[in-house]
Amino acid sequence: MSRLYSVGKEEAMLAVFSIVPVGVGSSIGDQLAEVLKVVDASGLPYKINAMGTVVEGEWDDVMKLIKQCHSTVKKTGERAFTTIAIDDRKGRPGRLEEKVKSIERRIGKSLKK
Amino acid sequence: MSRLYSVGKEEAMLAVFSIVPVGVGSSIGDQLAEVLKVVDASGLPYKINAMGTVVEGEWDDVMKLIKQCHSTVKKTGERAFTTIAIDDRKGRPGRLEEKVKSIERRIGKSLKK
Amino acid sequence: MSRLYSVGKEEAMLAVFSIVPVGVGSSIGDQLAEVLKVVDASGLPYKINAMGTVVEGEWDDVMKLIKQCHSTVKKTGERAFTTIAIDDRKGRPGRLEEKVKSIERRIGKSLKK
Amino acid sequence: MSRLYSVGKEEAMLAVFSIVPVGVGSSIGDQLAEVLKVVDASGLPYKINAMGTVVEGEWDDVMKLIKQCHSTVKKTGERAFTTIAIDDRKGRPGRLEEKVKSIERRIGKSLKK
Repeated sequence: MSRLYSVGKEEAMLAVFSIVPVGVGSSIGDQLAEVLKVVDASGLPYKINAMGTVVEGEWDDVMKLIKQCHSTVKKTGERAFTTIAIDDRKGRPGRLEEKVKSIERRIGKSLKK
Repeated sequence: MSRLYSVGKEEAMLAVFSIVPVGVGSSIGDQLAEVLKVVDASGLPYKINAMGTVVEGEWDDVMKLIKQCHSTVKKTGERAFTTIAIDDRKGRPGRLEEKVKSIERRIGKSLKK
Repeated sequence: MSRLYSVGKEEAMLAVFSIVPVGVGSSIGDQLAEVLKVVDASGLPYKINAMGTVVEGEWDDVMKLIKQCHSTVKKTGERAFTTIAIDDRKGRPGRLEEKVKSIERRIGKSLKK
Repeated sequence: MSRLYSVGKEEAMLAVFSIVPVGVGSSIGDQLAEVLKVVDASGLPYKINAMGTVVEGEWDDVMKLIKQCHSTVKKTGERAFTTIAIDDRKGRPGRLEEKVKSIERRIGKSLKK
């Protein structure tokens, strides 16, 4: 599937998203595990952190993935809150790794990741 | 164009989005005016506030509109930050008006809008 | 209480926030009604919409209010997700009303609010 | 400074924040480097990613740090957009590391971080 994606082209953007299932109790780890399976299988470059998943790709590929994740949560629950933040900069692919490194170079110090 | 949209069907969700053009100076009103022209012409039910635009519709319709708005900003600038928050609840259309009214009924008081 | 706030001073900023109680079921209107009572009683200028509450004030006043709202939700639930977005522009008070009007002047048309 | 913080107490929450300086051009790395210096010096447990900084601590400690970061950006620019998302769960400290591990245990697979 990954060959369908276009990271490395000029049009790639960064996005972070998180989904909060509502109405399934205060433990939402099972739902999030299903979401991360979808992300991991997508072939899109990603990195997860304690508050969300960062992905890199073209608009349509990223949004297709997020829709798939959101739908996964809606399958087992009747309400979901999804937040998405996009940083789209012309001609800057490869930023999933590069953006943090660029800050570290400026500071001259390795940061916690 | 509005007849293409499906608000009123069970699948409608609420979304709020905002776009910050970066690299065009600290006054971004001209870019946002172009965005709001796109929103107003879309036929999707919407309400703007000082921090973003709330729209109601199906996932694909809402995301198509936000992509169009984001692209509008990218035409005149080289970087844009877009944030989206979605509240998707099964079987609850018409919430652009209803959600606030439902809070007001609970409080028994009209709130500032 | 409102005289304690400093909107109108140069340092006022705009913020929008929303709180999602998790673990209390998919109907969260009762919790949000309690939150809006706190907002309405605060004396800070505000406007609610279907996806959040926009407030205007100095950083400390705004954050004090949001903490109070977040705590209100935590009283009856064991988990809460709160999102906050801030637009802080030097020397621009009164933007709760003015920001939308400024877009409308640029477009030459009244927008849905 | 770290001994002033209270991570490990029951009241710790997770927050992710990001700041977009507006009006200083489309390259904002210098401003973000200053922000990360503040974070790194704070003593609060943190992890940065390509879209934001995740911190763990009590509400007041976290908000004090974010205010300091926001002020750092305002020193050299006239406008800043700051977004904050909070996941606050009773009796769950140490989640900066644990939350991702808990997902990995459910999936039975290591994810990209």
